[in-house]
Amino acid sequence: MSEYTVGVIGALGAVGGQMRDILAVSSINIGEVKMFERPELEGKTAEFAGEKIPCEVATPEALSECDLATMSAGSDVSKKLAPMAANAGCVVVDNSSQWRLDPEVPLVVPEVNPEDLDWHEGIVANPNCSTIQMVVALKPIHDNYGINRVVVSTYQAVSGSGSDAIGELKSQTEDIVNGEEPKAEVYPHQIAFNALPHIDVFRDNGYTEEEMKMVNETKKIVGEELEVSPTAVRIPVYRSHAESVNVQTELSPDVREVREILADSPGVAVEDDLENNVYPLCTRAEGKDEVFVGRIRKDPTIENGLNFWVVADNLRKGAALNTVQIAESMVERGLV
Amino acid sequence: MSEYTVGVIGALGAVGGQMRDILAVSSINIGEVKMFERPELEGKTAEFAGEKIPCEVATPEALSECDLATMSAGSDVSKKLAPMAANAGCVVVDNSSQWRLDPEVPLVVPEVNPEDLDWHEGIVANPNCSTIQMVVALKPIHDNYGINRVVVSTYQAVSGSGSDAIGELKSQTEDIVNGEEPKAEVYPHQIAFNALPHIDVFRDNGYTEEEMKMVNETKKIVGEELEVSPTAVRIPVYRSHAESVNVQTELSPDVREVREILADSPGVAVEDDLENNVYPLCTRAEGKDEVFVGRIRKDPTIENGLNFWVVADNLRKGAALNTVQIAESMVERGLV
Repeated sequence: MSEYTVGVIGALGAVGGQMRDILAVSSINIGEVKMFERPELEGKTAEFAGEKIPCEVATPEALSECDLATMSAGSDVSKKLAPMAANAGCVVVDNSSQWRLDPEVPLVVPEVNPEDLDWHEGIVANPNCSTIQMVVALKPIHDNYGINRVVVSTYQAVSGSGSDAIGELKSQTEDIVNGEEPKAEVYPHQIAFNALPHIDVFRDNGYTEEEMKMVNETKKIVGEELEVSPTAVRIPVYRSHAESVNVQTELSPDVREVREILADSPGVAVEDDLENNVYPLCTRAEGKDEVFVGRIRKDPTIENGLNFWVVADNLRKGAALNTVQIAESMVERGLV
Repeated sequence: MSEYTVGVIGALGAVGGQMRDILAVSSINIGEVKMFERPELEGKTAEFAGEKIPCEVATPEALSECDLATMSAGSDVSKKLAPMAANAGCVVVDNSSQWRLDPEVPLVVPEVNPEDLDWHEGIVANPNCSTIQMVVALKPIHDNYGINRVVVSTYQAVSGSGSDAIGELKSQTEDIVNGEEPKAEVYPHQIAFNALPHIDVFRDNGYTEEEMKMVNETKKIVGEELEVSPTAVRIPVYRSHAESVNVQTELSPDVREVREILADSPGVAVEDDLENNVYPLCTRAEGKDEVFVGRIRKDPTIENGLNFWVVADNLRKGAALNTVQIAESMVERGLV
C-alpha cells in the first residue's frame, strides 16, 4: 500500500484545524504531513495526530515533495498557489471559490459526482457549504425521479462567515442579555435575535453571491438541467446550516420510497419521525459527518413534487470533511 | 358621528394588552369600553387610554351592551363565547383559529378582502399571523399578474407561541451564555441558537397545522386558485416573522413595476435598496404597523416568477392590529 505525503495549506486557520483533525483519521495512508502557512506564521506549529509540526512557506520546492494538499487560504492565495502546486506535481483540493466554476477544474462532492475527479489536471475544487449539503440530498432524488426545479431557502449559521462572526453573535447576545446595545461590525445589521437575507455581496440581478453559488455549482455538480431558485439567509445559529427545499420532479415520488432511497444513499441520514418530534436540527448535526434529511412530504401544489428539510455541519461536510473525502476518493481511484 | 361601546374579551392576555393599546388610538369613536376576563380575574383592572377599568365576566347581558368586541381568549372559549356574543347583538372579531375556516364566517385582512365583511353574521375571524403578512404582499401581485403557486418558508419569532416561549428563549440564551445546559419545556427541542421546522402539531399529510393554516386561509382570503406550498420554521427571534416567498405568475412581472405596485399598496412598505444593505429585518419591523417587503427579484427558473422577503410584527399586524383594523373597517362600512 502506497504511502502519501500530504500537505495542509492554511494549516492554522479555522478550516485548516478541522482539516488536520479529519485528515488524521482519514483512509489515506499518510507517510508524512507538511504544514503550510503564510510567511508571518513560518515556524509556528500545527498539531497533527498528537504531533507538533512546524509550518513552512509554500514554495514550489516544498510543494513538490507533496503528493496532494488541501488548500484553505482564500481565493486570492489560491489563484496563485494552486497552479504553482499543481505544476510542482502536488494535486490540490481547494476549498476557496477561486476554481469552482473553471471548466478545467472538477467541482466534486464524492457521494454525487466522483467520476468528475477522473479529468482533473492537478486542481479539484470543493463546493460551497450550502451547495454541498443540498446536492447530497438532491442527487438520489434526481437519479430516481428526475428533478427539474428546486426552490430553496437557507437558514445559515454564523460560523460560515468565520471566527469573527462567531464572536459577533456571542458578544451581541451577551450585550442583549445584559441590557446593553449590541454592536454590528462583521454583518451590516444585528444578527443576534434577527434574520439577515443577505450572505456575501449582491449582484446586479438582485441575488447574492451565495445564492448564485447554489445556482451555478449545483448545475456543475449534478447537471445543467437542474434549475435552482435560492434565498440565502443568515440566522443566529453558531453551527450547521439548515435548508428548506422544494423540488419539482419528472416522475411521481412516493414519500416512503424517497425515505428509503435517501436512507440507503451514501452520506445521508434520514431523521423523519414526526410522532416523536424527530427531524434534522442544527444543534444535533454539529460535529457529525452526515447530511440529515427529514420532514419529507408530498407537495400537493404541483403534479410531482416534494418538500423536505436538510441540515449538515457547515464546518465538516460543508468544508473540511468534503475536502478530505475528495482527497480520499482521488487516492482510491488511483488519481494521485 | 355615532359612539360605540367596545368590548375587549381576554383583556389581560398578551394579545389583549396590544388590543387595548391599539384600540385606544383607533379611528373608532369609542363611547365606552368594557373589559372581559375569565371569572378568576373578575375585578382586576386593565388599563385603557390611561384609565383603569375593572374586568367583568362575559355574560350575555354584559355583552349585549357592546356594539362590538375583540376576542383573544383561545379557540375553546371562542367556540362558546363568540356565538353567545353575536346572539346578544355584539359583533365579535375573533383572534382564535376556531371560526377561520367556517364558511359562514368571513376571514378578513382589511387591505385584501374588506368586501367579505359585508356578509358577516355577527362573527368575523382574524387570520393566523403568518398568513396575514403573506397575503398583504401577495394580493397586489395577484391583482396585477395572477399568482398560480406560492412556495414559502417562514422564519418565525417565539412570541407567536406566547409569553412562556419568550421566557424560554431568554432563559436558554442566558444558560448558554453562562455555560449551563439549556432546558426545553415549551418547545420539544432547544430553540436558542437553533431552528425548529415544527410549529403547532403535525397532521397525517406530514404538514403542520401552522403550514395548513397558510394553505387554507390564503385560499379563503385571496382566492381558491392560490396554491401554497409552505414550510414553517421557528427561529431564535423574539418578535416579527420573516418569510421567503417564491411566486409563479400568469403574466410576466417587471421587478421595478412590482416595487412600485407594492409601494402604492395599503399596509405595505417596500424596503429594497441593496446598495445600502436595506431589506426587511425582524428587529426593524418590531412595533411597526406595515408589512415590509424587499429583496424583490425575478425567478429565472420559471417563465414568470418572483422571489421576495416579507417581514411584519407578528404581535401587531399578525394579531391585535389586524383585529382592530377589521373592527375599524366594519364601522366604516356601516356594518356595526
